[in-house]
Amino acid sequence: MMINEITGEECREVLARGSIGRLGCSLDNQPYVVPICFAYQLDYFYVFSTFGQKIEWMRANPKVCVQVDEIVNQSQWVSVIANGTYEELREPQYLVESTHARQLLEKRHRWWLNALAERRARGNDLLIDPLFFRIHTDSVTGLRALAEGEGAGAPQR
Amino acid sequence: MMINEITGEECREVLARGSIGRLGCSLDNQPYVVPICFAYQLDYFYVFSTFGQKIEWMRANPKVCVQVDEIVNQSQWVSVIANGTYEELREPQYLVESTHARQLLEKRHRWWLNALAERRARGNDLLIDPLFFRIHTDSVTGLRALAEGEGAGAPQR
Repeated sequence: MMINEITGEECREVLARGSIGRLGCSLDNQPYVVPICFAYQLDYFYVFSTFGQKIEWMRANPKVCVQVDEIVNQSQWVSVIANGTYEELREPQYLVESTHARQLLEKRHRWWLNALAERRARGNDLLIDPLFFRIHTDSVTGLRALAEGEGAGAPQR
Repeated sequence: MMINEITGEECREVLARGSIGRLGCSLDNQPYVVPICFAYQLDYFYVFSTFGQKIEWMRANPKVCVQVDEIVNQSQWVSVIANGTYEELREPQYLVESTHARQLLEKRHRWWLNALAERRARGNDLLIDPLFFRIHTDSVTGLRALAEGEGAGAPQR
């Protein structure tokens, strides 16, 4: 197995195909990692959420990291890491962007909106409000592992 | 779909079954997330690595977060988040622990050692030294999503 860096363009292709990633945020140098469902378009990850620890932390520190991978098996995979900046799509200021986010995400993640609806229907959590945010990709790097073939280096993370 | 918290014991069962997770570390409040292969035993994640950014950052700030999940489909999954502390298993001080880590990991991740061997054989990176570390689990939380059934709350991250 050889591990090689991939180009920025290849990284963006992986992100555009992806729908599940891991979001890292941090506060007072304590990191926090959670799975997210996203839609990626033109340097932005669009994400639907409800209020919780990750939102609280990203409001305090908008520097985030998103990791997305495609794993075929242990010796054939690609992993992309995007460093980015959190932007909450509050209405009415971000009405256009949040409408866009909703449309993008509804195509892929209707189940998630259903889950929200069910939580609301239970009526035991009155603080559930849908919330959209996006993450601007400031830089991106990626590695690809191949079982065979030529490798030009051995980058390490 | 309902999302419910799981107990600490259930979280540890997920970790013990797991072998791939996402490790979050941070430096100067910039988070960084990478996939890791691990073996979990008695409150410790054991990990094999080579030197790189994550090692550099964890040496500077040992507070880390490991996220592990089992995803059946979009409405049936479990996700565990462990906050922990980085400990590098340097020899000779940690000889017993690093030998233990090597044995645990070799059972599951021989491919990874093979990859290291191949990188060495190429001879274009003389700085590749195997390195073992472990992460002590300081606290753990988990969520489980179920397509049907009773849910007792709606925790949010």
